[in-house]
Amino acid sequence: MSGRPAIRPDRLQDRLARFAAIGATPKGGVDRQALTQGDRQARALLVDLAGSRGFSVRQDAAANLFLRRPGEDADLPPLLLGSHLDTQPTGGRFDGALGVLAAFEVLEALEDAGVSAPRSVEIAVWTNEEGSRFAPGAMGSQAFASGLLPAEWLDARASDGARLGDELAATIGSLPAPVTSLGFPIAAYLELHIEQGPVLERENTPIGVVTGIQGTLWLAVELEGRAAHAGTTPLDFRQDPMRAAATAMAELYRTVMPTDPDARFTIGRIEVQPGSINSVPESVRFTIDLRHPDAAVLAGLERQVRAACKNASADSACRLSIHRLLDMPPIVFPETMVRLVEESAQRAKLATRRIVSGAFHDAVHLARCAPTAMIFCPCRDGISHNEAEHVEPHFAAAGTTALLEATLSVLARVR
Amino acid sequence: MSGRPAIRPDRLQDRLARFAAIGATPKGGVDRQALTQGDRQARALLVDLAGSRGFSVRQDAAANLFLRRPGEDADLPPLLLGSHLDTQPTGGRFDGALGVLAAFEVLEALEDAGVSAPRSVEIAVWTNEEGSRFAPGAMGSQAFASGLLPAEWLDARASDGARLGDELAATIGSLPAPVTSLGFPIAAYLELHIEQGPVLERENTPIGVVTGIQGTLWLAVELEGRAAHAGTTPLDFRQDPMRAAATAMAELYRTVMPTDPDARFTIGRIEVQPGSINSVPESVRFTIDLRHPDAAVLAGLERQVRAACKNASADSACRLSIHRLLDMPPIVFPETMVRLVEESAQRAKLATRRIVSGAFHDAVHLARCAPTAMIFCPCRDGISHNEAEHVEPHFAAAGTTALLEATLSVLARVR
Repeated sequence: MSGRPAIRPDRLQDRLARFAAIGATPKGGVDRQALTQGDRQARALLVDLAGSRGFSVRQDAAANLFLRRPGEDADLPPLLLGSHLDTQPTGGRFDGALGVLAAFEVLEALEDAGVSAPRSVEIAVWTNEEGSRFAPGAMGSQAFASGLLPAEWLDARASDGARLGDELAATIGSLPAPVTSLGFPIAAYLELHIEQGPVLERENTPIGVVTGIQGTLWLAVELEGRAAHAGTTPLDFRQDPMRAAATAMAELYRTVMPTDPDARFTIGRIEVQPGSINSVPESVRFTIDLRHPDAAVLAGLERQVRAACKNASADSACRLSIHRLLDMPPIVFPETMVRLVEESAQRAKLATRRIVSGAFHDAVHLARCAPTAMIFCPCRDGISHNEAEHVEPHFAAAGTTALLEATLSVLARVR
Repeated sequence: MSGRPAIRPDRLQDRLARFAAIGATPKGGVDRQALTQGDRQARALLVDLAGSRGFSVRQDAAANLFLRRPGEDADLPPLLLGSHLDTQPTGGRFDGALGVLAAFEVLEALEDAGVSAPRSVEIAVWTNEEGSRFAPGAMGSQAFASGLLPAEWLDARASDGARLGDELAATIGSLPAPVTSLGFPIAAYLELHIEQGPVLERENTPIGVVTGIQGTLWLAVELEGRAAHAGTTPLDFRQDPMRAAATAMAELYRTVMPTDPDARFTIGRIEVQPGSINSVPESVRFTIDLRHPDAAVLAGLERQVRAACKNASADSACRLSIHRLLDMPPIVFPETMVRLVEESAQRAKLATRRIVSGAFHDAVHLARCAPTAMIFCPCRDGISHNEAEHVEPHFAAAGTTALLEATLSVLARVR
């Protein structure tokens, strides 16, 4: 080692700007959806950069892309640093790209300082984290962690008509990098990501040490009543699903989040049929996004939602059905990894705060096959999945420094 | 008079079936929207029937169609019996048509019995009562009552691209009937219509004596908050318009109709933006249809709605705006006319019940220019604006008999 490695904030900012130009939108955001030409262009640029630093490059059948800075012992499983380069259709410059480019900056800092260590450090660029062009999201990391690429994924069609299997093949084929088997042993996984929430910025805390990822349940609630004339139908003749829906919703808005600061309750979609001003609706459908870091509490919240909907539907003489659209249990990162990140950041004099991730990340899947931790960067106004998404350069630098320090800690400690 | 006039229920049923065949839908309903070929065909059939009984026919500039059984004194304003022949896109066989064909049956019964009276009895077929192809509804009766055909109506376009002015001209031109000026003095107006609600059928009461038409207010409520990530945004960072909407709605569902059996409160339309399962919405828009027979109470209900929305929007830090889309004050029919209908029906041994009309009717406009009354027929399950709409033949006959008796009462009494 020729000196203590350090990141170069200007180089990081330059890289962020170069990648933000690929798929740039007029409003300053990025449209670089998974497996599009833009995604391939961003991967090609990263492969070029890797080549210029002598990092080796490989891919797998899920088009996950890996850049390795080899350690002295090729038999040791590498430390993996990862995130994604795909974006939402009207996404920002940092969601995903910051994690990949911070990881690249870490590799360069190790290289610049001539750090030598037994263990390799490898960057993973996970395919299709966003899930906006092809469902589900976090495909690449899930395929890596499970070693499986489900056949039904390959036949999935994008709204633009493209078939996932074809787009994977074309993306892999576009890069001068060998394809290795899906999944390989890793020593640990670290991911830097923007918070996508307002907590760190409000406290002006540069480093969020992620303790886990809350569990998420998506429920589709359907209430069926009877369409009726708004003017001629007295109350006791109504089977009004909108009344049932509003009553259940209001009770849940009043009870779920206000009594538990860790709970998240969101109704983001509602459809009313027939949707006529002067008709009592025939049916109302709405979705509930319910989250909690504690699996048992989340299960209790689901019971609470079902009970509120059941009572309200019975009061309005409506038929009720509730389906789960998604059930992702909470992830808790190992305390050793959480503490490792915390101590690494504090070593660099960076203030930290423990935080539960409200959003999904590729780390959900990696946590199943290796000790995993995440670092959050503050983002402006908590805004993400939005062209206005912004991370202050000093926060990006702080997060990247924390990632470097955590990398050094893993290289020094994890066996 | 060659005997007491009486209606012929079989003839009425035959007529109802013949008209229901024009625009018949596979599910047994009728699609005969205003000023379409179907509407013209139905008018032509009625003009044919009028010719066969020697009734005179005329139209006006709003394509209202009139069939007159002349009285002995041509200077006396006629008694007008009216309704409409247009339907909703998936309408029933009775909404409108029953009133027109019952009126025709009354004219035939007078004719069959050789009734002679000083006053003419005239049928009005009002143009575009439903308002589904061209807004607003009840155009023809409004034009007749006001003597005006607003220029903006003439330029209104249907969803099929047709211009109202052109369709009026084509409809008028399709009939062998002279066009007279818009509006003329009338002695009184009587309209038979299906209840479009469940009250009479539930009580098995054949005759609803309509005391008036409740006032209707349509409000468009818009709540604007801030879109945010469902997983990452704590409660105190949310400006959730869906929370505000559900809270206001639930309060109003709980307070408006349950405390006042004459009030009607309906939310039939709601739109959420961006409509993503895992996003706190940016905005929520919904409509409120609010009705009451008493103008002062209706005004109080509007204040109650505005206050509930204001409180809920303030609690959720959302911006609120409320616009009136429609403001139709209550109509109260003259007690003399209500009693005339009541006594006429009772003379024919028909049980009656006073009832407030929950729906609009052409009578809303006629009530402004002449003593007006309405008779309601029970309909199955209160269903209307629906292909399943049904009126039992004995109820149709009872309503038509009541209309005949009321006609005789007007001919005998009203000066």
